[in-house]
Formats: sequence, C-alpha cells, structure tokens
Amino acid sequence: MPSYKAPVDDVLFLLNDVIGIDRYNNIPSFAEATPDLVKAILEEGARLCEEVLQPLNRVGDTEGCTRNDDGSVTTPTGFKDAFGQFAEGGWIGLTADPQYGGQGLPHTLGAAINEFVSSANVAFGMYPGLTQGAIAALTIHGSDAQKALYLPKLVSGEWLGTMNLTEPHCGTDLGLLKTKAVPNGDGSYAITGTKIFISAGEHDLSDNIVHLVIARIEGAPDGTKGISLFVVPKILPTEDGGLGARNALGCGALEEKMGIHGNATCVMNYDGATGWLVGEENKGLRAMFTMMNEARLGVGIQGLSQSEVAYQNAVTYARERLQGRALTGPKDPDKPADPIIVHPDVRRVLMSMKAFNEAARALVLWTAVRGDIAHGGADEAERQAADDLMGLMTPVVKGVLTDTGFQNAVTAQQVYGGHGYIAEWGMEQFVRDARIAMIYEGANGIQGLDLVGRKLPANGGRAVMAFFGEVEGFVKENAGDEAMAPYVEPLKVGLETLQQATMWFMQNAMTKPDNAGAGSTDYMHLFGLVALGYMWARMARVAQARLADGADNKAFYETKLVTGRYFMERIMPEAKAHYARISAGADTLMALSAEAF
Amino acid sequence: MPSYKAPVDDVLFLLNDVIGIDRYNNIPSFAEATPDLVKAILEEGARLCEEVLQPLNRVGDTEGCTRNDDGSVTTPTGFKDAFGQFAEGGWIGLTADPQYGGQGLPHTLGAAINEFVSSANVAFGMYPGLTQGAIAALTIHGSDAQKALYLPKLVSGEWLGTMNLTEPHCGTDLGLLKTKAVPNGDGSYAITGTKIFISAGEHDLSDNIVHLVIARIEGAPDGTKGISLFVVPKILPTEDGGLGARNALGCGALEEKMGIHGNATCVMNYDGATGWLVGEENKGLRAMFTMMNEARLGVGIQGLSQSEVAYQNAVTYARERLQGRALTGPKDPDKPADPIIVHPDVRRVLMSMKAFNEAARALVLWTAVRGDIAHGGADEAERQAADDLMGLMTPVVKGVLTDTGFQNAVTAQQVYGGHGYIAEWGMEQFVRDARIAMIYEGANGIQGLDLVGRKLPANGGRAVMAFFGEVEGFVKENAGDEAMAPYVEPLKVGLETLQQATMWFMQNAMTKPDNAGAGSTDYMHLFGLVALGYMWARMARVAQARLADGADNKAFYETKLVTGRYFMERIMPEAKAHYARISAGADTLMALSAEAF
Repeated sequence: MPSYKAPVDDVLFLLNDVIGIDRYNNIPSFAEATPDLVKAILEEGARLCEEVLQPLNRVGDTEGCTRNDDGSVTTPTGFKDAFGQFAEGGWIGLTADPQYGGQGLPHTLGAAINEFVSSANVAFGMYPGLTQGAIAALTIHGSDAQKALYLPKLVSGEWLGTMNLTEPHCGTDLGLLKTKAVPNGDGSYAITGTKIFISAGEHDLSDNIVHLVIARIEGAPDGTKGISLFVVPKILPTEDGGLGARNALGCGALEEKMGIHGNATCVMNYDGATGWLVGEENKGLRAMFTMMNEARLGVGIQGLSQSEVAYQNAVTYARERLQGRALTGPKDPDKPADPIIVHPDVRRVLMSMKAFNEAARALVLWTAVRGDIAHGGADEAERQAADDLMGLMTPVVKGVLTDTGFQNAVTAQQVYGGHGYIAEWGMEQFVRDARIAMIYEGANGIQGLDLVGRKLPANGGRAVMAFFGEVEGFVKENAGDEAMAPYVEPLKVGLETLQQATMWFMQNAMTKPDNAGAGSTDYMHLFGLVALGYMWARMARVAQARLADGADNKAFYETKLVTGRYFMERIMPEAKAHYARISAGADTLMALSAEAF
Repeated sequence: MPSYKAPVDDVLFLLNDVIGIDRYNNIPSFAEATPDLVKAILEEGARLCEEVLQPLNRVGDTEGCTRNDDGSVTTPTGFKDAFGQFAEGGWIGLTADPQYGGQGLPHTLGAAINEFVSSANVAFGMYPGLTQGAIAALTIHGSDAQKALYLPKLVSGEWLGTMNLTEPHCGTDLGLLKTKAVPNGDGSYAITGTKIFISAGEHDLSDNIVHLVIARIEGAPDGTKGISLFVVPKILPTEDGGLGARNALGCGALEEKMGIHGNATCVMNYDGATGWLVGEENKGLRAMFTMMNEARLGVGIQGLSQSEVAYQNAVTYARERLQGRALTGPKDPDKPADPIIVHPDVRRVLMSMKAFNEAARALVLWTAVRGDIAHGGADEAERQAADDLMGLMTPVVKGVLTDTGFQNAVTAQQVYGGHGYIAEWGMEQFVRDARIAMIYEGANGIQGLDLVGRKLPANGGRAVMAFFGEVEGFVKENAGDEAMAPYVEPLKVGLETLQQATMWFMQNAMTKPDNAGAGSTDYMHLFGLVALGYMWARMARVAQARLADGADNKAFYETKLVTGRYFMERIMPEAKAHYARISAGADTLMALSAEAF
C-alpha cells in the first residue's frame, strides 16, 4: 500500500527562503500569515492529509461512488467523515474572505495545502476544490444577496459547489451550448438542459449542492456571446437560508471512468430547474474565465501532486527491492542482491521525478504569489504586473505540470516492475488518477493555444517581455559567479531558445496562423523548461547562500544543488528539440487531406 | 465503441515493395509464401481479427477472468468460441514446423498477423502467443519424445502453453529463484514453488495446459548457473498422449491488474508437481534466452498494435467531432463547427502516431526477416549476420515500440477530450492494455542495458558496425538524389549522433560502467530514432520510385512521403537531446545517497 508524507520542509524552504513571503507583508493576507502560523498550518494540513485522506485513497478507487435508485449518490466509505473533519478544520475557506467565515490567508498557502490534499487523495480533494471554485466565482460575480446567502454555507462546508459547463456535443467550444434559461418573471430563470462530466454533481457529503451552470437565455445571441452564468441549488433555499423545496434537477447517471473513482462524475439533468443569474446577462463566459486561472492552477497542482506521491513510493520501493548487483560491484554483499536504487537507470528516473517535482512546486508557489499580489498588491502597476505573469504562467503550469505529472506517475509505476501493474500496490491508481488532469479545465492542447494565441500577444507582449526581462536579469546578476554557472549557463541557453521560438512565431504566425497552432504544444513545454529551470537557478542560489552561511541542514541544500544540476544536464537539453519542431512550421502537418490519415 | 481495420495494404507494401520478400525464396518458409498466398493469409487474418477478436476486446476488459472455487478459471464470454475459430484456422501454428502440423510459413508473416491480433484484442492474443513461445522452446530444446508428445497438441490448440519465470522476490534477477526440482528417480522431477504473473496460467480454452517452468534442481549451483527448464503439464499425459491424472499444481489466485483483463494472470502453486527436464540440467536460462528474442519482438509488436488501433480511432473521432473553427477560417461553414482534424495541434498528434506506426511496422518486419534468415538462410555467414542484427534490434523494438506505443495510446485518448477518460468509449482501455508491454519480457530499463551492455560489445561490436554500415551505405547511395534529401539528410545527422553516442560509451563506460547504465535508456531511444528513420528513408525511396513509375495508387505513396517528412522534421530532432543526456554521464545521478531521495 502506498504511503505519503507531505513535503512541509520543501514548502517552507520555498516560501521563506526562495520566494521570501515576508516581503509581501503589505498585502493583508500575507500580513496575517506569520512564519509560525504558516508552519503550523502546513503541519496541521500535512497531518490531516497523511492520516485521514491518504488512507481513503485506495478505498475511493476500489469502491467508487454509487448512484442509488432515487438518484442520490453515495460516496466511498469514510469520505463523509473525512469531509466533516476537513470542513471542521476550516480548510475549505482557508483563503476565503473572513467576512463570510473564511481564514483570509494567502492563495499561495492554499496552493501548498492543495498539493498535499491532492497527493493524499485527489478524488476526495475535488469536492472541496470545486467548492473553492464556486466560492471564488460568487465572491467576484455574485450580488451581495447571493454572497450573503451562499458564501457562509460554502465556506463552512455545510453546502458544496460545482461547475456545469460541458454538454455532450460541446466541451472546448462552449459557444455550441444548448442549455436554456427562460425568465420566470420573478427574477429567477427556468434552466433546462443536460450537462456531462460534472464532478461532485451529486453526493452525500453535504445537505445542499450549489450548482453554477452556464446556459443561454432565451433570445440571447448564438455562440459565446450569449452565455450566462446561473446559480442553481439542488435544494431551494428558504428566506432565512434554510432548506426548502427540492429543485428540478438531478444526477441522471454516473460516468464509468478510468480513474478518480472516489469522485462522483455526473450526468446532470436540468428540467426547468430554478436558477438565478450571477453577474450580467450574456457575460457568463467572462465570469467563468476569471475563475479559470485559479482552477487551472489547481489542476496543474494535481499533476504535480500525483508525480510527488508516486515518486515517494517509487523511492521507497527502490530502497527496499533487492534485485541484481550494482554495475560497480555488490553494494550489499551480505544480502542476496542490492537494492535497485544502486542502478543508474533507476536513479535516472527517480532524479527526473525529483528534479521536476521540486521545480514544479516552486513554480506553483511563484505563480500563486503573483495571484495574491494581483488581488491585494498595494498599487495598480504592481497588481497589473502580477496579473500579467499569473495569466502567462497559468497555461504553462496547467499543461506542463499535468503532462509531466502523468508521465512521472507512469515512470514511478515502472520502478515497481510487474508489481506496478497490480492494483493492490497502488501505483497504477496514480497513473489513472493523474490522467484526467491533462484533459479537464481545458485539454492541454488548448493550454498551448491559450499561451501562444492569447497570452503571448496580449497587450503587445507585455507579460512575456516582463518574464524574459526577469529571467535575463537573474542571468546577468549571476553571470560572474562560477558556482552558479552550472545553473545559469543552461538557463541562458534555454531562455535564448525560447526567445528564438517567440521571434519565430512573430515572424511566421501572424500571416499564417497554422504555424502558431503547429508549434503551440512544443512552445508551452519549452516555456515550461525555462520557467522550471529559472526556479532551479533561484533555488540553487539560495542553497549556495545558506551553505556559505553555515546552515545546519547542509544535506538539504546540497541535495538541492545536485538535483538542480540534474535538471540542467538532463531535462533542459530538450529545449532545442522543441525549437526544431516549432520552426518546422505547419506545412507538413497540413499537407494531408482528412481522408489520407 | 472503437473499431479496427487491419493495415493489410501497408503490410503488403512493406513485404513486397520495401523488404522485397521475393528475394528470400532460397529460404524454405519464404519459398512457400507466394505473393498470392501471403495476400490471402493477411486478408483472412484481418477478417478474423476485425470480425471475431475485436468485438470481444471490451467484453474481455469489463468481464475479466474469474477464478472459481475449485481453482478453475473462466475466460470472458466469447473467448472460448473465438479461440476455437483461431485454432481451427491454423493460426497458432502458422510458422510452426509442418512435421508437427504447422504451416511452416515465415516468422515475418507471423509477425504481421501478430500485430493484427494484438490490435484487435491484445488480452486474447496472449493465449496463442504464449503457446507459440512454448512451441518455439520445445522445438529448439525439447527431446524428440517431448516434441512428438507436445508439439502437435500445442500447434493444433488442443493444449495451450505458458512460461513460468517470475517469483514474488525475483523478476529481473532470476538468479534469486527458489522453485525447487527434486528427481523422482524415474526421469521426472517433483517441482515445488510459487510463480507469479503467469499469463494464461489457468483457463478454460483448452483441455490441458503445458507449463514451462524454470526451477533449481536440488544441489544445483546458486544464481543463474543452477537454473533448469521443465515441462510441467496441468494434466499428466498418458502413454498415447491422452489425458491422465491431474498434476499437483494450480492457480492460487488471479492478479487484479490495470489492464489486459481478458487474460488470466495467475499466481501458480507447484506442490511437488511432476515435470520433465527440457534440454540440459542447469542450462535453463540459456534455453529461455533463445526464446527471448522472439518473445520480445512479440511484445514490441503489442506496443505498435495498441498505438495503431488507438490511432485509427482517434482519426475517426477527429474527422467526426465538431468543435471550434479552423484558425484560417471555417472549413465547414454549414455545420455548427469544423471537425477537429482541421486544427494543427490535432493533426500534429495524429501525424506523430502515423509516422511512428508505419515505421515501427517496417522495423518489426525488417527485424523478423532477419529472424527468418537466421533460422533458414543458405549459408553460415548470412545466418550469422542476420542473427547479429536480430539480436541487436530486439531490445530496440521491445523498448522503443512499447514506450512509444503506450505514449501514443495516451495521445490518442487525449484527442477524445473528456470522452477519452470514459470507459465506454474504449480509448482508456488501450492505455491500460498498452501499459504492460513496457514492463513484461524484461522491463524497458533492462532492454536498454541489454542493448548497451550485451548487444553493443558482443563479438567486438560486429552487429552494431554492420548496422551502421548498412545505414551509411544507404545514405551514400542516395546522397546525390535531391528528392531524397529531406529523408537522407536528417537520417545522416541521426546516425552521426548515434555513432557519437556509441563512441562516447567506448571512451567513458569501459572504465566506469555507471556511465553506460546512466545513458542506456537514452541510447536505446536514440537507436530507435535512427532505425525508424532508416525505415522511413527506405519507404520514401520506394514511394518515389513507384510514383516515378506512374503507379496507380498515387495517393498512398504521396501520403508516405508526407508522413516520412513529418518523422524527419518532428521526431528525429529528439536525437540530439538524447545525446546530451548520454554525454552528461553518471556523476550527478550517482551523487546522492539513497536517503537523500
């Protein structure tokens, strides 16, 4: 059975030493987050994840959710109790507005906790995760009355939330949606339609479920310009916020999925269900988009989370499994064989995962800090700059962390040999669970297009120029430092390759947009290499400084330096292959007719 | 529900045009295989796979196998009937010796049929596949009496075969095996031990199951030098080859696996079961090794097979799914959206799969021809040269085709968006089924080590020098041909990179073997790029010649040329990244203590 230990020390290293969150005390949420409090919260969150959520991970997978004849859904054994503890501990509203019962702490801290929760039990984590999304949507777009009614219930976990976007014939292209909203004349609407792939659409964890549903108001324009957002509760609230009549909606079926079995993925039927407009008419897609950065960051974290927990278990197995002898002669001659961690090829895959996980964690927190500044920064320029970088990095975090996170779950499974393929060892569950993150919240191909087609050109390239400037600044600052050369030189080459690729798009994709689409996924991964490499270079600099200062935990910093070097030697070289593919352009891709495939 | 169409035309193109099997008429099996017969067999095999085996693929996945209270195992609905048709058609013994009821046809043709079978239903295909392995083992190592007793029954499918190698504490490192063989004094042995992961260990497809089991004879040396091979039938044969008493062995449990649910993966208990030595005492591992090339080629084919069937379904979906508009403006303005095959990023993944599949198929057949020549070539020099290349290419085919085959199954699933994650669409089954091929018959890390540690240095590098010579010869031959430049130039760069990597090992790994282990997986994939690239260059040359000759099926050859160009533009550039990793060496990999991970 797999186990999990939340990487609290690594998060503290990142928050305190690398990012230096004490610099952001001018932001209210950070002012609250004293070093002691942050440490206490991480440790308490770690305990909950390790002791309560992780033991339910395989239960969730094997039992799955059950739809009962009355349309109700039963979650796996133990989920309801665990959710009670989760809500009780205030974890749902960790970053929510204190006015509605939240803790008002930084999203950065929320991101760290999200990683722990997802590593421990990603299917469980989706229930509060979607609720956090609903809280964010209502906080930004809801009316005061809606906020007063729904937010305290959602923050406390008394009610949970969902997002209803996808329909059978439309996922990526929401402009095709058919769900209808007809005004009831009393300010409410009658919502009718079918939504699919609705995570946590029905369950037994809470008394009520607050569905956020996109639909087209009768007579609204076709396409994305006619989409509105509605709040559609499962049980209609009474005047005083109590539970009234059952709304005309329900779970028609549970999807049989590859993984995340502990989460109820529902087909939701709305049969004239009563809903209320959130925000403005026909601006629903914009409302969804404002939540999307956060949701996509959350899915990126899921990618990292499966990579991390799979890695941890692969390390344990590699230390314990005796098989073969080291190429350089027996390391453990008294035993029948050496542990497989002596083999370079086993170390190669463990180092690949480790080098990714630690940089990915840094990038998540670096991006989340940008989110906090964008919300609470002191002046407009600071907020805008942070928002630029957050927007730019969001598709990178989502696409790269989920692609690589899945790949690493596969790699970790491989370390187990035949046992990796057997369910009871738990490694194949990580693979199945990790797989969805590449698909939902915008399939990764869409992330590449978002990066190349939207985020790059936005505001004349302001965001990407700022990022390049920041990395260039770091490179220059450390150019003379010989100890930093193994990190800075490869980063420099990576950055130049990325700049070359950006230039290639500017010269070749304006007039021929297929050239952008043909290179978008490679560009996203190239961007990820540079962003992760930048994180490693920053971590290396801090590690060297701490070692020079005679830090106590020498081994921690020395391990960072080795792991960072591995990233530069073995992962960064991929940059040039990405550039070769990008600069190959679209011609060969577009040459065949659809029939010729 | 997925569908499947066997690529008969592509196989005919490879056999007739690219490989030119008519050149091998001096080999008895090829002399039998007239062009008409080959075509008829491929078409008949295709029909069986498409109409009988493929419709059972999802049945096998959802029902799985059941172990009954008496230890018997029931296969999924329809498997027994299908197996009856399969055996009836003579497919098990397609390449077996006519003396024992086989068809005596080339292994090359068998490899083509194996791809069809595995694409249609890989879990089903393992039953006859393992039997073919047992036939091969007994043909080479069995006594005349053993051959006379077992081969006709195995060839006809009346009895099926298995391989029993793995034990709970030993997979890769078979020297650790504990299963014991004690002489009974009558020429037979009493076999006692537990074997795990035994595919087709118990089932209801045949009256008897012939287990090939490795075990250590009492008093034999420790390690791999004391391993012997035994034939241990489930039911002891009577003098006249009938069914006698039940042997003391049985399936203790079925493994719960990630995929290939249609195949019964058994824990096998041998409790003093009666077995007979196959070949010489203590030479069991050598006996297993002679079968291994063929078995590993078979697993490589499984990798290709899942990539092919997943690709076919992704293409169908991409042609039908309407979502979004082409970047260059609506392609199908009368419909609500364009089919997603208009999007460059969708084409990119389809082309990647197509470019891999067609070259992988060529490489499989090219390697299989070497196997046929190694067995039946006219003179010793020819046989040895073929055996060298077959041995060299085996780990490449196994490792690269299963790694990439799995990756492609994942990629094809991604084309389906959210539907790819839902079981009823069938795409996630391909991913789960493809996953095992990276693990069994030697996990892919072991393939890399086999290539670098065994196959490269064998006979002073004779095999690899011959391969380099062949590719260099092709490059030179076509150097002046401008139309071939898009294929030959990148192949040349790839080959030079591979030669550089080979040289790097010679200079750096002799004295420091960790440098070999640290680069072995990358070297295997680099080798794969060059081998697949060489196949593309050869296919391109044939396609150009046929077009110049005014061939009828112009579109077929033109598509080949585009697809080959895609390979060179987008896949071959990976070569240099592999070299960068290889030449990074082992230092960083080996730097951390086991505790530091």
